[in-house]
Amino acid sequence: MKNIAILGSTGSIGTQTLEVIRANPGLYKVVALTAQKNAELLIEQALQYLPELVVICDDSQYGKVKDALSDYSIKVLAGEEALCEAASLEGADLVITAIMGSVGLKPTIAAIKAKKDIGLANKETLVVAGSLVTQLAKANGVKILPVDSEHSAIFQCLVGESYSNIEKIYLTASGGPFRGKDRAFLSGVTKAAALKHPNWVMGAKITIDSASLMNKGLEVIEAKWLFDLEADQIDVIVHPQSIIHSLVQFTDGSIKAQMGLPDMKLPIHYAMAYPERAGTDFPRFNFMDYPELSFEQPDRTTFRNLELAYRAMEQGGNMPCIINAANEIVVAAFLEDKIGFLEMSDVIERCMQDVSFIAEPDLNNFLETDAHTRIFARELVTNQTLSI
Amino acid sequence: MKNIAILGSTGSIGTQTLEVIRANPGLYKVVALTAQKNAELLIEQALQYLPELVVICDDSQYGKVKDALSDYSIKVLAGEEALCEAASLEGADLVITAIMGSVGLKPTIAAIKAKKDIGLANKETLVVAGSLVTQLAKANGVKILPVDSEHSAIFQCLVGESYSNIEKIYLTASGGPFRGKDRAFLSGVTKAAALKHPNWVMGAKITIDSASLMNKGLEVIEAKWLFDLEADQIDVIVHPQSIIHSLVQFTDGSIKAQMGLPDMKLPIHYAMAYPERAGTDFPRFNFMDYPELSFEQPDRTTFRNLELAYRAMEQGGNMPCIINAANEIVVAAFLEDKIGFLEMSDVIERCMQDVSFIAEPDLNNFLETDAHTRIFARELVTNQTLSI
Repeated sequence: MKNIAILGSTGSIGTQTLEVIRANPGLYKVVALTAQKNAELLIEQALQYLPELVVICDDSQYGKVKDALSDYSIKVLAGEEALCEAASLEGADLVITAIMGSVGLKPTIAAIKAKKDIGLANKETLVVAGSLVTQLAKANGVKILPVDSEHSAIFQCLVGESYSNIEKIYLTASGGPFRGKDRAFLSGVTKAAALKHPNWVMGAKITIDSASLMNKGLEVIEAKWLFDLEADQIDVIVHPQSIIHSLVQFTDGSIKAQMGLPDMKLPIHYAMAYPERAGTDFPRFNFMDYPELSFEQPDRTTFRNLELAYRAMEQGGNMPCIINAANEIVVAAFLEDKIGFLEMSDVIERCMQDVSFIAEPDLNNFLETDAHTRIFARELVTNQTLSI
Repeated sequence: MKNIAILGSTGSIGTQTLEVIRANPGLYKVVALTAQKNAELLIEQALQYLPELVVICDDSQYGKVKDALSDYSIKVLAGEEALCEAASLEGADLVITAIMGSVGLKPTIAAIKAKKDIGLANKETLVVAGSLVTQLAKANGVKILPVDSEHSAIFQCLVGESYSNIEKIYLTASGGPFRGKDRAFLSGVTKAAALKHPNWVMGAKITIDSASLMNKGLEVIEAKWLFDLEADQIDVIVHPQSIIHSLVQFTDGSIKAQMGLPDMKLPIHYAMAYPERAGTDFPRFNFMDYPELSFEQPDRTTFRNLELAYRAMEQGGNMPCIINAANEIVVAAFLEDKIGFLEMSDVIERCMQDVSFIAEPDLNNFLETDAHTRIFARELVTNQTLSI
């Protein structure tokens, strides 16, 4: 029985993690659940899984959660700082970091320091502070198990292989709802159109990131840290069917790919069961449903975010932190109809130019860069001074 | 430095094995070379690689080989029995069994008894006597490393994985030169057409087997023994581009595939370098050269051999030995224009009906079945009494 703490249990990955747990009675026990502000669902989950600890980040909802769970021996905490308590809970074996955004950084660090293995669904942790987090994990003997489908694919392809034999990896990208479109088209797209992902059902923020290819850009940086790669070892290939989830090419020229239906429960379960594979009754892939798998180069000119992410990765230091923070602000602004689709990249690029570069940042530098970039990006959005 | 004995060094796999050795100076040393009857090439190879032992199976060419190598300290032997000496040579670490046909069985057994790891390119060994050979390998702590591209793919996908987590495997098949054709078309095809494989450059016998899908049928049986699978765990999918070399589906629903250009040097090198991967400068796969990978079900009604092979595998005993021996005779007959393409299956099926079935054969039973089937199949071919 593996004890699981889920940070962000009411989101898309969080709820699917609970589905996996429910589908595998006897394998996993939920010991902590946390939510940003969805008190209703958090209460429902807590009553079903009876964890030791529940955290609601939004202080104003503390009373509601506390009251609802008062008949049970469940500790209830409020506020973002309490996430670290959930992340380092004594009884937890594995912490699933399913929180969205750079707010996941501090609790992930807390979990690593408490020597908990990490099921990493919060890619921002590695994008923002990859060097620091991977070093810390190494020092604490902690495994970082990727939950992103692409990184889980790479991780599965590397089982039993030596990382030093990686020649390159291919991260596959569906291309999102706007694949093949030009900038003229993109300048007018609505958030409703951007929220229609062709293959994956995900939260709003990551769905917009998929449409803008920023998700793939962030994944490139995540992969660099997870698998200790250089920029020129990471390639992106558009694969509209989302069946091949990613590939590793080894130094002998052999390529291994991991495939399956686009269902996040599979990589979630892989991270939870690792190093075992636990049987599932998830629907199986059938070649006859996908008689053709196709591939094309990503359009890095139209979808500039991917190019910006590569540039940030190559520059290093706090630059990936800057693009991540700027991106969180612009996606929120796009979802609030405050800026257009193409302006998102404009704001990000402006932040990369203007926020102070730090070559070897420590944790405080990262947190300050994150905070400063958000302020600057919000100003750019509000004042619409985007011409660069 | 790994010492390599190559049985069948003048054939397609044998010469490519030597290419791999030449391309990797310092990694491998050739200690034995054997050929059926191509004395010229065997002499040339011996002079280049200076093995300890050379075997020419065709006795009549012994003098020629002996004379040509008389200035060197190379032992020269003749006759099929001498293959066992090459296979069990004291200094050899790995024996590449690149001989064609069931004649590979005895030397492979000799190599296993001498505790040599096997680079298995002679699939007939496992088709004919899989139970016996795999038990013997287990008892002697010998690794059987597949050289067939499909089985190497499966083997690579299984590195670091537990065989008990295999749900099923997919062996990919190019479909050969006659993919999509009907029986009316096949009844008139020439050996020249059958020898034109769309993707792979191979010897004549295996090229005909690819055109008739018997090669895939034999591979299904080979896979059963290599990976300890039941018939319903082995599926065949036609993939005309021959880029995905085969796939494993695990009990959690995840699928791993091994891919690359269709180049036998890759699986050969993998078997030789195992458990390492050694860097190569073989041409690399590029998605832009293969923007679409396609898949279809094999046509088991038109290409009956695949169906016959599954039936033989399910019946077990000496039945796979019967189809293999019958197939060797009919392919030779087809290459000599003695029978038509479709008649090959007719003869094989007749042999399956009429040769005595033995449920639990020992080595002698296998050798007798092999000899008896060949006589019977030759009679059928000669007398053209094929209606069944």
